[in-house]
Amino acid sequence: MTDSAHPQPAAPSAGLSDAGRPVAFRWPVRVYFEDTDVGGVVYHAGYLRFFERCRTEWLRSRGLDQQTLLDRHAIAFAVRSMAVDWLAPARLDDLLEVGFEVREARRASMKGVQRIVRADDGALLCSASVRVACVRVPDFRPVAIPDSLLESLTA
Amino acid sequence: MTDSAHPQPAAPSAGLSDAGRPVAFRWPVRVYFEDTDVGGVVYHAGYLRFFERCRTEWLRSRGLDQQTLLDRHAIAFAVRSMAVDWLAPARLDDLLEVGFEVREARRASMKGVQRIVRADDGALLCSASVRVACVRVPDFRPVAIPDSLLESLTA
Amino acid sequence: MTDSAHPQPAAPSAGLSDAGRPVAFRWPVRVYFEDTDVGGVVYHAGYLRFFERCRTEWLRSRGLDQQTLLDRHAIAFAVRSMAVDWLAPARLDDLLEVGFEVREARRASMKGVQRIVRADDGALLCSASVRVACVRVPDFRPVAIPDSLLESLTA
Amino acid sequence: MTDSAHPQPAAPSAGLSDAGRPVAFRWPVRVYFEDTDVGGVVYHAGYLRFFERCRTEWLRSRGLDQQTLLDRHAIAFAVRSMAVDWLAPARLDDLLEVGFEVREARRASMKGVQRIVRADDGALLCSASVRVACVRVPDFRPVAIPDSLLESLTA
Repeated sequence: MTDSAHPQPAAPSAGLSDAGRPVAFRWPVRVYFEDTDVGGVVYHAGYLRFFERCRTEWLRSRGLDQQTLLDRHAIAFAVRSMAVDWLAPARLDDLLEVGFEVREARRASMKGVQRIVRADDGALLCSASVRVACVRVPDFRPVAIPDSLLESLTA
Repeated sequence: MTDSAHPQPAAPSAGLSDAGRPVAFRWPVRVYFEDTDVGGVVYHAGYLRFFERCRTEWLRSRGLDQQTLLDRHAIAFAVRSMAVDWLAPARLDDLLEVGFEVREARRASMKGVQRIVRADDGALLCSASVRVACVRVPDFRPVAIPDSLLESLTA
Repeated sequence: MTDSAHPQPAAPSAGLSDAGRPVAFRWPVRVYFEDTDVGGVVYHAGYLRFFERCRTEWLRSRGLDQQTLLDRHAIAFAVRSMAVDWLAPARLDDLLEVGFEVREARRASMKGVQRIVRADDGALLCSASVRVACVRVPDFRPVAIPDSLLESLTA
Repeated sequence: MTDSAHPQPAAPSAGLSDAGRPVAFRWPVRVYFEDTDVGGVVYHAGYLRFFERCRTEWLRSRGLDQQTLLDRHAIAFAVRSMAVDWLAPARLDDLLEVGFEVREARRASMKGVQRIVRADDGALLCSASVRVACVRVPDFRPVAIPDSLLESLTA
């Protein structure tokens, strides 16, 4: 399997640009049996896993690998708060498109917005705002994002 | 194993009473390996699973079994929105106490507040507000809560 | 996002051919925070989720969509038994390649083998044999695989 | 909430004694929405989580807390192999009884058997054999179980 076999981020969306600097990022997610529940739809907490995959791939697209952050810097990005609206259910086999866009970056935290749409008709299924903080592992005290990383995040 | 081997809800807390009618409900949850992540703490979406266990046990304490709701009434309670604050991390082996309190009950939806504290020192780890709607399965259209159930929920 | 943004199965491997008919199928899986545990590696049950994604994509590659199986045929493929060996741990951010190969197909069940290798060095991390049965939903009684599907599965 | 509100292990079963020394251990598990899938039953990998909760509580019943093992000894018990049979499905709201019994204890690993029965009728839903090894974290190399722990495990 070559790298080309792995999902590639969709091109940045012009529609979600922020002050002329396109930061919107989208990542495809497929719904599997593991994601569903007896109601016949994706279990509500599962959308938070999808949101996190998208944030992780956004970091990766900027050259940041979280295992490296843990190993070299002993830091992680911890979710501090989310407001989530579940608007319509995703179902088994649905192909979803998960988005992330930074709205505010500070020394030790970031705010962003996320949404999940069904790929085949663009229906909005879930939207969220999220605040993540840079924390030291293992004690989870907030710390400033190292300068070398901050450049990657805000470039 | 007798019923007495299963976790029993703690007594209603006087401190969380609502208009003189104590509705607060608490449920113990233990943190296992499955709940943790490489950061050494409970994965953030896992707290939503804990919140849902507590709401389910609150329903059960009022005589409502969700499998029966699905089988007899073809309804489920679907989470429509949550606002969640993660304040401090839970860790492996922690015993947590998860709370739920109804704040508003309507014909087809309910609002409530939830929190998770660490049992051994009472530290508040996570708090949330939640809105759940009564929906018809499998199409997830909002429906009124059947009268027979409404009595159990608001008694 | 176009279909091309979604992961594509790697080409069938000649090395895993069965009686001259190559049936091996491989699917890429990325390890996220949700998959890890406090030990710093993928939680052991998580590999079963990866195996199932691969089997699902194998079905999809043959034109079978499990939501359709549920809706039109009221059947599902239920796992009856697995023997799993965890050989070396996968870690956060690892790109894995999950494989599936049918070894025996009967009227109402199938046997196969699966493995998970780390994409960057080919290290074998986990291997398994699996038996899945065709069952009727919701009572889970074993049923014969419909002829129309059987052709797709064994072609 | 007092400790008495938390589930207590059932008394050891005479029927599963091993060489005159009863080692069987049982732990109650309730099925929640999070555990189910669109097939209407518990997702197959979920049973492995239930098995692990039972092994963890077995360790706890012998005075071993896995967070302490990680912090003080930098060791964990990693699952090396399992053979699992899923015999009948568990459903939402089912109360299950999960069992564990050691069959062989070595310097650096243990073998045991596990089963899950439905509490209300004793139906056997899932059975497994499991081998766990003592490993050093974070490199997961096998190590001998410290003498101080071995006494607790085999007493």
